[in-house]
Amino acid sequence: MIRTQGVTGPQGFRAAGVAAGIKESGALDLALVVNDGPNDAAAAVFTTNQVKAAPVLWSQQVIKERRLTAVVLNSGGANACTGPEGFQDTHATAEKVGEALATGAGEVAVCSTGLIGERLPMDRLLPGVDAAVAELAGTEAAGLAAATAVMTTDSHPKQSWTRHPDGWSVGGFVKGAGMLAPNMATMLSVITTDAVISGDALDAALRHAVTRTFDRLDVDGGTSTNDTVIVLSSGASGIEPEADDFAELLTAVAGDLVKQLQGDAEGATKEISVTVMGARTEADAVTVGKTVAEDNLVKTALFGSDPNWGRVAMAVGRSAAEVDPDRLGITINGVTLFADGHKAADRSEADLSGRDISIVVELGLGEGSATVLTTDLSHGYVEENSAYSS
Amino acid sequence: MIRTQGVTGPQGFRAAGVAAGIKESGALDLALVVNDGPNDAAAAVFTTNQVKAAPVLWSQQVIKERRLTAVVLNSGGANACTGPEGFQDTHATAEKVGEALATGAGEVAVCSTGLIGERLPMDRLLPGVDAAVAELAGTEAAGLAAATAVMTTDSHPKQSWTRHPDGWSVGGFVKGAGMLAPNMATMLSVITTDAVISGDALDAALRHAVTRTFDRLDVDGGTSTNDTVIVLSSGASGIEPEADDFAELLTAVAGDLVKQLQGDAEGATKEISVTVMGARTEADAVTVGKTVAEDNLVKTALFGSDPNWGRVAMAVGRSAAEVDPDRLGITINGVTLFADGHKAADRSEADLSGRDISIVVELGLGEGSATVLTTDLSHGYVEENSAYSS
Repeated sequence: MIRTQGVTGPQGFRAAGVAAGIKESGALDLALVVNDGPNDAAAAVFTTNQVKAAPVLWSQQVIKERRLTAVVLNSGGANACTGPEGFQDTHATAEKVGEALATGAGEVAVCSTGLIGERLPMDRLLPGVDAAVAELAGTEAAGLAAATAVMTTDSHPKQSWTRHPDGWSVGGFVKGAGMLAPNMATMLSVITTDAVISGDALDAALRHAVTRTFDRLDVDGGTSTNDTVIVLSSGASGIEPEADDFAELLTAVAGDLVKQLQGDAEGATKEISVTVMGARTEADAVTVGKTVAEDNLVKTALFGSDPNWGRVAMAVGRSAAEVDPDRLGITINGVTLFADGHKAADRSEADLSGRDISIVVELGLGEGSATVLTTDLSHGYVEENSAYSS
Repeated sequence: MIRTQGVTGPQGFRAAGVAAGIKESGALDLALVVNDGPNDAAAAVFTTNQVKAAPVLWSQQVIKERRLTAVVLNSGGANACTGPEGFQDTHATAEKVGEALATGAGEVAVCSTGLIGERLPMDRLLPGVDAAVAELAGTEAAGLAAATAVMTTDSHPKQSWTRHPDGWSVGGFVKGAGMLAPNMATMLSVITTDAVISGDALDAALRHAVTRTFDRLDVDGGTSTNDTVIVLSSGASGIEPEADDFAELLTAVAGDLVKQLQGDAEGATKEISVTVMGARTEADAVTVGKTVAEDNLVKTALFGSDPNWGRVAMAVGRSAAEVDPDRLGITINGVTLFADGHKAADRSEADLSGRDISIVVELGLGEGSATVLTTDLSHGYVEENSAYSS
């Protein structure tokens, strides 16, 4: 994995990131990613929240053809809960990009992130589109500018790029720092590939990847109004990979982006993996993993470096999946503290002083397993989320 | 509502609270409530957690006859995840109480609260039972001692007592400070009445009351291994109330106890009510209310006195209940900030500087409504729960 390259790693893509003035700080706030082809296959996955931002409603429509020429993204405003007027703003943004690139608005997806409920300053955003088009380039720097322009409370841009030995590659960027949740949240990601692949195959590969990566990061259970992952294929490598090979590399890049999201989650002092084994089904393993990952009492104990397995047992027991307390086992950072219904070792034997914490829950009921990533619940989380309107 | 009286308010009950030495601090840690009759009808509701503590497993068995002579409760240890040995400890405790009161162990319910995974110090607990029996009294002071002996991180004992004009009354105590959750959590409550009522009628009234009170307090989504609410009827007033009258007063007392739990939740700086109106069903209203109440981004915003209705809209939208964003309305502390899919007022118009916060969510879909109580997510919550092993 190379983290200094993202959407411009694969051939056939240009990107830009500019300061349009949407953020009062003057920071970069408008990103554009353009697919120069020869192909224009695309796929996307959106938030499951019933309150969807205007750009999500727009992009859900345009992605139906599984073809996109460009994605335009802004930070500094979510354009959610803004009514028909907000939808018009999104439409106007796509029209503007379409005109500037000599394509149709129906080939342009739109993403937004920031505060809910406020209209976007279109008088600044639309000129920003012109500025972004003028700066479009296929360089590493241009990809980095785009990855930077989507940031909100992220502390750094997050990119990943990997080449397959056969000569095609997958790259992308992601933003997201809080509200990271079951089935994604205030999380935007654009992923590009120069592999030759159809829209339908791209869609299948994306759903495979998202289920195993973005959907298994769960910082605080929040699922935003704006979550979007879009993948674009230029086909510029001229190589058509096997479907399994493509899905595997796409999942690897998505997994690396998610790992970076976890590491940069608001206020996190611990990076926690919750692995559930021996569940009746993989779905049960995910259910148990997410219940543990979202539990505030588990998360505060881990912030305090306390291997409080009793709280883990409590969270496991309240999950909707089948659990048998007499078969339950809990291992934290390699030390089995609870096994077969009994305390197995003193909690003091598990050392949680470092940043990485591994929790393994053994259910003893079947073959289902899954790993969910999360972070601790810290003073920093409370501070950032009580002081920052987002 | 009188809050200086609890289980000894109704006639026919004695109580005690002693320091058995289960807590290292030397504080009161063993409580006993005895029903002197003439009746011994009883009912109980327990945690829905699949990992149930030994005292829950015991009490679930003995309550099947809907008759109890006594309830013995300890703080300083949950006796959960302690295997068959832990269950034996609970059994021995009930036997001891039964002997001392010249009744059967099968007439004695047991409740425990404290750290999960450790065996109880039976060499101190059993002599504590003798001490408690010796101190049993029907006085206000004895009821207060019992209410105090069940406390863990509670800052004060919580009692409530109310008389019906017809001459019978309902009283009780509750403990619980964190892990307060959907369907109850680290929460123990004993409620008494001198009304004449059958075990079956008592059970029906208790389920009615719990559904509308304990189940609608949701501090952090945690549901403990030990949650128990027990109600005992002595019949000592000689008065048999109408079923509806009894259910109403029981619900009022339970509601007053829950209000005290909310006010004393770990680290809380805000007491928040989330009222959902216009839902398709009452169940949908509860689902939406709990999703908002458990949302860490909503809770941190309210800690910061920020009327961030966008986060409320996000939480409403991710709930499992049906929501139509175009009909959604959000009112905070009396100011409608969002209505019919649009911002309705600037958030600065809602003043959240006080301790009490009221959120009203209007779904515009039907007649279902419900109110869920919660608290904010504060530095104090993080501090208490990262430093205190429970």
